[in-house]
Amino acid sequence: MSHNSFGHLFRVTTWGESHGPALGCIIDGCPSLIDITEEEIQVWMDQRKPGQNRFTTQRREPDAVKILSGVFEGKTTGTPISLMIENVDQRSKDYGDIKEKFRPGHADYSYQTKYGIRDYRGGGRSSARETAARVAAGGIARKVLGDNVKIKGYLTQIGDKVIDRSRFDWDEIDNNPFWCPDAEMAQVWTKYLDAIRKNGSSVGAVIEVVASGVPAGLGAPIYGKLDSDLAGAMMTINAVKGVEIGEGFSAAALTGESNADEMRKGDGQSPDFLSNHAGGILGGISTGQDVVVRFAVKPTSSILKPRATVTKSGEDAEIVTKGRHDPCVGIRAVPVGEAMMACVLADHLLRHRGQQG
Amino acid sequence: MSHNSFGHLFRVTTWGESHGPALGCIIDGCPSLIDITEEEIQVWMDQRKPGQNRFTTQRREPDAVKILSGVFEGKTTGTPISLMIENVDQRSKDYGDIKEKFRPGHADYSYQTKYGIRDYRGGGRSSARETAARVAAGGIARKVLGDNVKIKGYLTQIGDKVIDRSRFDWDEIDNNPFWCPDAEMAQVWTKYLDAIRKNGSSVGAVIEVVASGVPAGLGAPIYGKLDSDLAGAMMTINAVKGVEIGEGFSAAALTGESNADEMRKGDGQSPDFLSNHAGGILGGISTGQDVVVRFAVKPTSSILKPRATVTKSGEDAEIVTKGRHDPCVGIRAVPVGEAMMACVLADHLLRHRGQQG
Amino acid sequence: MSHNSFGHLFRVTTWGESHGPALGCIIDGCPSLIDITEEEIQVWMDQRKPGQNRFTTQRREPDAVKILSGVFEGKTTGTPISLMIENVDQRSKDYGDIKEKFRPGHADYSYQTKYGIRDYRGGGRSSARETAARVAAGGIARKVLGDNVKIKGYLTQIGDKVIDRSRFDWDEIDNNPFWCPDAEMAQVWTKYLDAIRKNGSSVGAVIEVVASGVPAGLGAPIYGKLDSDLAGAMMTINAVKGVEIGEGFSAAALTGESNADEMRKGDGQSPDFLSNHAGGILGGISTGQDVVVRFAVKPTSSILKPRATVTKSGEDAEIVTKGRHDPCVGIRAVPVGEAMMACVLADHLLRHRGQQG
Amino acid sequence: MSHNSFGHLFRVTTWGESHGPALGCIIDGCPSLIDITEEEIQVWMDQRKPGQNRFTTQRREPDAVKILSGVFEGKTTGTPISLMIENVDQRSKDYGDIKEKFRPGHADYSYQTKYGIRDYRGGGRSSARETAARVAAGGIARKVLGDNVKIKGYLTQIGDKVIDRSRFDWDEIDNNPFWCPDAEMAQVWTKYLDAIRKNGSSVGAVIEVVASGVPAGLGAPIYGKLDSDLAGAMMTINAVKGVEIGEGFSAAALTGESNADEMRKGDGQSPDFLSNHAGGILGGISTGQDVVVRFAVKPTSSILKPRATVTKSGEDAEIVTKGRHDPCVGIRAVPVGEAMMACVLADHLLRHRGQQG
Repeated sequence: MSHNSFGHLFRVTTWGESHGPALGCIIDGCPSLIDITEEEIQVWMDQRKPGQNRFTTQRREPDAVKILSGVFEGKTTGTPISLMIENVDQRSKDYGDIKEKFRPGHADYSYQTKYGIRDYRGGGRSSARETAARVAAGGIARKVLGDNVKIKGYLTQIGDKVIDRSRFDWDEIDNNPFWCPDAEMAQVWTKYLDAIRKNGSSVGAVIEVVASGVPAGLGAPIYGKLDSDLAGAMMTINAVKGVEIGEGFSAAALTGESNADEMRKGDGQSPDFLSNHAGGILGGISTGQDVVVRFAVKPTSSILKPRATVTKSGEDAEIVTKGRHDPCVGIRAVPVGEAMMACVLADHLLRHRGQQG
Repeated sequence: MSHNSFGHLFRVTTWGESHGPALGCIIDGCPSLIDITEEEIQVWMDQRKPGQNRFTTQRREPDAVKILSGVFEGKTTGTPISLMIENVDQRSKDYGDIKEKFRPGHADYSYQTKYGIRDYRGGGRSSARETAARVAAGGIARKVLGDNVKIKGYLTQIGDKVIDRSRFDWDEIDNNPFWCPDAEMAQVWTKYLDAIRKNGSSVGAVIEVVASGVPAGLGAPIYGKLDSDLAGAMMTINAVKGVEIGEGFSAAALTGESNADEMRKGDGQSPDFLSNHAGGILGGISTGQDVVVRFAVKPTSSILKPRATVTKSGEDAEIVTKGRHDPCVGIRAVPVGEAMMACVLADHLLRHRGQQG
Repeated sequence: MSHNSFGHLFRVTTWGESHGPALGCIIDGCPSLIDITEEEIQVWMDQRKPGQNRFTTQRREPDAVKILSGVFEGKTTGTPISLMIENVDQRSKDYGDIKEKFRPGHADYSYQTKYGIRDYRGGGRSSARETAARVAAGGIARKVLGDNVKIKGYLTQIGDKVIDRSRFDWDEIDNNPFWCPDAEMAQVWTKYLDAIRKNGSSVGAVIEVVASGVPAGLGAPIYGKLDSDLAGAMMTINAVKGVEIGEGFSAAALTGESNADEMRKGDGQSPDFLSNHAGGILGGISTGQDVVVRFAVKPTSSILKPRATVTKSGEDAEIVTKGRHDPCVGIRAVPVGEAMMACVLADHLLRHRGQQG
Repeated sequence: MSHNSFGHLFRVTTWGESHGPALGCIIDGCPSLIDITEEEIQVWMDQRKPGQNRFTTQRREPDAVKILSGVFEGKTTGTPISLMIENVDQRSKDYGDIKEKFRPGHADYSYQTKYGIRDYRGGGRSSARETAARVAAGGIARKVLGDNVKIKGYLTQIGDKVIDRSRFDWDEIDNNPFWCPDAEMAQVWTKYLDAIRKNGSSVGAVIEVVASGVPAGLGAPIYGKLDSDLAGAMMTINAVKGVEIGEGFSAAALTGESNADEMRKGDGQSPDFLSNHAGGILGGISTGQDVVVRFAVKPTSSILKPRATVTKSGEDAEIVTKGRHDPCVGIRAVPVGEAMMACVLADHLLRHRGQQG
């Protein structure tokens, strides 16, 4: 029930702070004889790493992942895989201002209240740097899932600007700095985020992650539901405030007949579904349809706009957060959401074959 | 990592099917010396039990809870508390139609695919009857939390009809069959749901649950976040497709300065917050503000409207679900949402004092 | 991490007290489509049930097991299996004496100290009646393991009287009330235990449990070792004070060359081992050889001999435990040890195929 | 349920192989505000590290522990503590011989059978080098327990040579290379082990670990028993084949009246116990008496004596294990046993205050 672990049979434990010497994770339970190299994991690391364009934090981190255990002669051995990423560009001096004051809407306050101490440098453990370890773990989870399972995330909304689904183009997603499947909206977001950034503000976003090729039967009643684990997993990502499966909140406005995903005789193996309101999960168990998860990210609370706050000793104060921050943390949340999807699916794949062989 | 358990230190394991002899739960880890009687738990059972008005299933179940262990001379002993609720009104004959065909949008299909067998009577394990056990557990969780923590749920939306927050009245919630805090909207819903019911259809809903008096410091980084556990817990409730904390998806459209919950010097113990966009949780840890969770329930897939489907052997068919069903399962989800909130908070209360004393 | 659960993928949670209305267990994670009836489980229950001869407690309990969930039309459905055994012959009046005084060497004292309350009737939760639920769970575990895995327990020592291994006869085990594989020793034990019983005393025992047909590969490094889980499981049985695997403590006196289980070319599938000092487990993982576990049971502390003790309020007193007790609880521990072996192996079978397919 | 983790609230996850770049552990759930330095942990590391005298492996490892996270300005922050120990003196060439052949009695065979691959260099994950991470974790666990809890281990037997308890001297334990409390026996062991070592053989041992100052109330019924967790924990140490609590196997030969630890009115806080057959644990819960655990270690299977074995492809062969090995691994198991005791007690301390406040 460890606070810093998730998953059960494919179990990931992360450690590390923003401004410590390194961060990393242990993956325990990975099957043996899976080919894995640092380079394969690095591909995913590079998607998340900061400083790649003007819309993400300017912190320069190579985020080079090292495999310290569990892989021998290029193959997993079934023993725990330890992955480490060194912190290179900490610049602790940037964060001196937040030592004594809390950023409104930030974990500063709750960590201090719970633990009576916090590593205030760059947010310490609550920093989004922790998600580098998730992306590394996700790289291994993808190998466990195999090539048939494809996981792809993208942004559907930044601030109040939502993509037009009629312009959805899978090939567009990797063509812009926003993982935006709508080329026109990518233009809009560029101008919008430039303004936000210059203004010293920040803004939220909505991310959608789709997994195709997921075998039917993953997940379990009642508290081991696949959608429950996905919801819990996405909600662990920094700044996430909402999670939806399939229709999500829109399902509330539907009638039973409009929400039903009707079925027709299929290929003999499985039926054809005529729609996917369910997002690929019924009764907590995958159906073989695409698994569709959506999550909302709030705007970062580290902004240049002055806000009313209190000091550690409880006195009134005002805070302006200098340092290097993402105007929209939702952008870098895309590879993180993909990684969490991969880890949850890998865990349930192993759990399913544990119970059902 | 049991599929049918949730919580860690306050751990609930449920069992039972809709049409078996009984259902129940085990609560493990409850502190000793807490006064508890069957009558106290029954209060909450009665809020969820079916057949109380024409908007819920007409199945007649007293849902009488029995304490089989863990309580001695009116007090908990620290040993596992076994609660049992007998099924009285099963009428298995009603469900003969669904033995061979899958209801689109129902767990029928996924259970059969995963397990190669299912108890088709009344949905078996996937029936919402399972939630009776949650409500019983929630009754004990409330005792663990103590009187300072108040948990109250209500509906904010049925179908596309959303309450007007300017008319919000806490006292109204218990005055109508919908747990609706908006008296005018309760009138609208009455007519709307009557039409849905007569039409043999169903509709979804949105439920909000608020916990006040929650001590600051519950929850933990990174995968033991309070909001992650709440999201996972709510998503385990039958038919739930989305979960939000505080602003939820609306946070995506906000800027950092508008989303920040500014703080001012408080009573010396804790600061005053000028707003609660965060829903009482920062960095996964409670702040002492109200914890606010919202979840969306899809319309039940057991409807009188004919839908295209396939049979167990994969042939095309059409299905109409007779039997007794809720036109809006969201109504009875209110006490269940409250119970899950209570259980998650009780678990984190024990976890917090485990780590921090 | 529930206090009253064991196992992970084949997970058993027990509940109930000696003098409550019933006791039972939930088995979560059992694969579906396994044939199971109450009668099959009852076979094992009858081996453990009290009052079968003058060497076990004279409490009369039919120990009739009921399946309340998880089995449909004679087959497991993959959902939690709830088993219940009603308590019939409680005679609470027998236990009035122990309400105020602690039995030296009994859990009375530690439960009271930890929880500030205890169900003193018949030992409450600490009573060996709890093991009825284990035996029921073990009956299902055996079905998961399949017919190739044979599990058999027996006594090797009562008091200071140890069997002669040269007279070991598997067929003799079921021929005497002691599960004794040595017919001559069974005669000795009869007289010895009669004297102990008439004397109002009690005595300890050593039990050995052997599982044959266990596939190689069960267990895992480092903290998921099969022998670690077996040791932990056996140590949870009432009154157990020691556990050994294979040579056990005798291994301390051996040299490396005498302890080595040499190997020779086998049938092509697996090598032949020339000995089994290891007890079938190397590095925490089964080798395919017989898994051999031994555990020591202390004499019950409920005796007619007066002992010095203190009262609940801490005053000096003397105690004599009337009521119905086993002169040697080790006898009835045999089916319990078998059940624990079955549950641990079933759990590791599922865990192994979860990780390795 | 991770294979490489132990503990629940004080949770330790270890990683690393004998001949990889490093090994280490994550400690999750440690309370905040505990003073901790690398130097304090190093004290315990130095007790276990190899090459300190001629009776342990001649591998030269400084075993310098680094804190990578979870400690800020000398205090724990409540976030995961990552500890790393670099491997310095691997000399992989020594181990070429064991690449193709299995050492009888070694995990080589079972790892290969389970995983189809193994890091054969120095035993890979199954090497006793993993215990360095346990000792590091134990150093932190001791800080959680506080100064009132004293944990001390020692050897009571090497080969067939057992200490004389009448000569037991606590002060002698640190005066000889064997952690031997009997000065005369230390002389005997010196000669005995010299002969074993020169002979290319190895021998087993028995270790006893005593914890004093343990508060009453740690542990829980039924599967969360303190003695069960201790037995499981000790059995995870390399080469351990048996575990005892208090009287252990000797309890089998006792009568109820001789085994009872009688009680007399004590200091008002707790009674005085007139003996400690129970080893400080009743019903799985600590009584406040010394917790006494004993475990047996088999002789290492890496010996210079030739043994019959098979190759990876199943052919008959003979093996002689060169390289650097401990003639009696039991010696270095003493600090490891102490560390496991510390970790189990720290976990139960947090668990107890979680449930009981």
